[in-house]
Amino acid sequence: MCELLGMSANVPTDICFSFTSLIKRGGDKGPHKDGWGITFYEGKGCRTFKDPQPCSFSPIAKLVQQYPIKSTAVIAHIRQANRGGVALENTHPFTRELWGKNWTFAHNGQLTDYEKLDTGIFQPVGLTDSEYAFCYLINELHKKYPQQPTNNIELFEYIRECAIKLTQLGIFNMLLSDGEYVFAYCSTNLHWITRKAPFGKAKLIDEDVEIDFQKHTTPNDVVTIISTMPLTSNEIWTKLASGEAILFKNGEISQSFSS
Amino acid sequence: MCELLGMSANVPTDICFSFTSLIKRGGDKGPHKDGWGITFYEGKGCRTFKDPQPCSFSPIAKLVQQYPIKSTAVIAHIRQANRGGVALENTHPFTRELWGKNWTFAHNGQLTDYEKLDTGIFQPVGLTDSEYAFCYLINELHKKYPQQPTNNIELFEYIRECAIKLTQLGIFNMLLSDGEYVFAYCSTNLHWITRKAPFGKAKLIDEDVEIDFQKHTTPNDVVTIISTMPLTSNEIWTKLASGEAILFKNGEISQSFSS
Repeated sequence: MCELLGMSANVPTDICFSFTSLIKRGGDKGPHKDGWGITFYEGKGCRTFKDPQPCSFSPIAKLVQQYPIKSTAVIAHIRQANRGGVALENTHPFTRELWGKNWTFAHNGQLTDYEKLDTGIFQPVGLTDSEYAFCYLINELHKKYPQQPTNNIELFEYIRECAIKLTQLGIFNMLLSDGEYVFAYCSTNLHWITRKAPFGKAKLIDEDVEIDFQKHTTPNDVVTIISTMPLTSNEIWTKLASGEAILFKNGEISQSFSS
Repeated sequence: MCELLGMSANVPTDICFSFTSLIKRGGDKGPHKDGWGITFYEGKGCRTFKDPQPCSFSPIAKLVQQYPIKSTAVIAHIRQANRGGVALENTHPFTRELWGKNWTFAHNGQLTDYEKLDTGIFQPVGLTDSEYAFCYLINELHKKYPQQPTNNIELFEYIRECAIKLTQLGIFNMLLSDGEYVFAYCSTNLHWITRKAPFGKAKLIDEDVEIDFQKHTTPNDVVTIISTMPLTSNEIWTKLASGEAILFKNGEISQSFSS
């Protein structure tokens, strides 16, 4: 399996603290040694750092951990290969352009019969079930909405319907972003927490690191972190139910979708 | 204007030496302070490091310069903004997937009337003439070849025809790669050099750095560097003619196209 990490914030925020925890699980404390990646949105643009190497030994991961890139939407992933070998083209997150927007996707789980999915003109570059599922999803959006729809809630409701179909092929926890929204869909395991004033201290589970958010924030900041497993030991994380999806924007819940 | 840098090699090779020269021109010695980017292919996968900051002051550029990522196809770019502001989404190289391959593009020059180009479903994310031109190009390929063609020479001949059309809108020097091939099209300014045994020493123009390639190569290595301007002072670079294109593969010329 793999681990997912996402962030939605109302002001450009760095994810160094949470990423520090994630990379400890990438080849050091965890079995997720088969690559890692992180996508930062800045305006309409995004940039992805990725490496098929274990992230706990990657100089690129070290840079990402130490150089605070500030963003309002982030998607990250550490990989334990199941479908598709250890290779750059099989490393999450994956990005495709649709309607002049960069869509970024990462998946935790394992699917069967995914090669049968109709991905249309969005063809996978690598061999993972995850990229197949993403190409299927983007192609479904392209078929249903040749032009960008104006109703975003309806759009993400449709994305959840597609995610439910993909769940029929196996375990399918996913994070998806267009830079404005961060969409979390839970099949088995996904947790989230929203931090806002009054800010307190947080302590990582995987590393002896504590942060006092009050020193790094303003009273108006709102930041949500989404993660496969809780990353801190002294905060209350909420687990998404199976089949539940939450759409975040500017750090807050824009819409919840449940069965 | 901007500066282009490309590499094609028959064995995974790092581009640290040439990149050292390029980044000196990015905000220090040159006017290209409006961002930079570099895409490395490794197998079918590729990864891009980019920054809207001047590359001579970028911690990410420093990492790329010091951490030898080995690749057989590289495209890099430093930017002096003309069309489109200084922003991540306007920073080259640009990548789009077609036929299950990552296509990466960088442009030097300036186009007019580019908003009229038909880009079909490949919509630009940013506002540069360059990304418009790239989306036009990929859409033309998609229209002419709904499936990946088997004749690569014919494919790149068609890409050159599209490039010639784009030259009617202004200055259009470009580098394009699918990871296997590196295609260079010259409108006004583009130089290349192939290094193979017997290897000698090379000295950068922009920096007091000399390298003895013999110490870093095997006798079978073949590496071609393509650059807007020659990067070394003691080697003979070949200038492409206006309208000329060269297709490189494994470091060697696969095909030349001239008027």
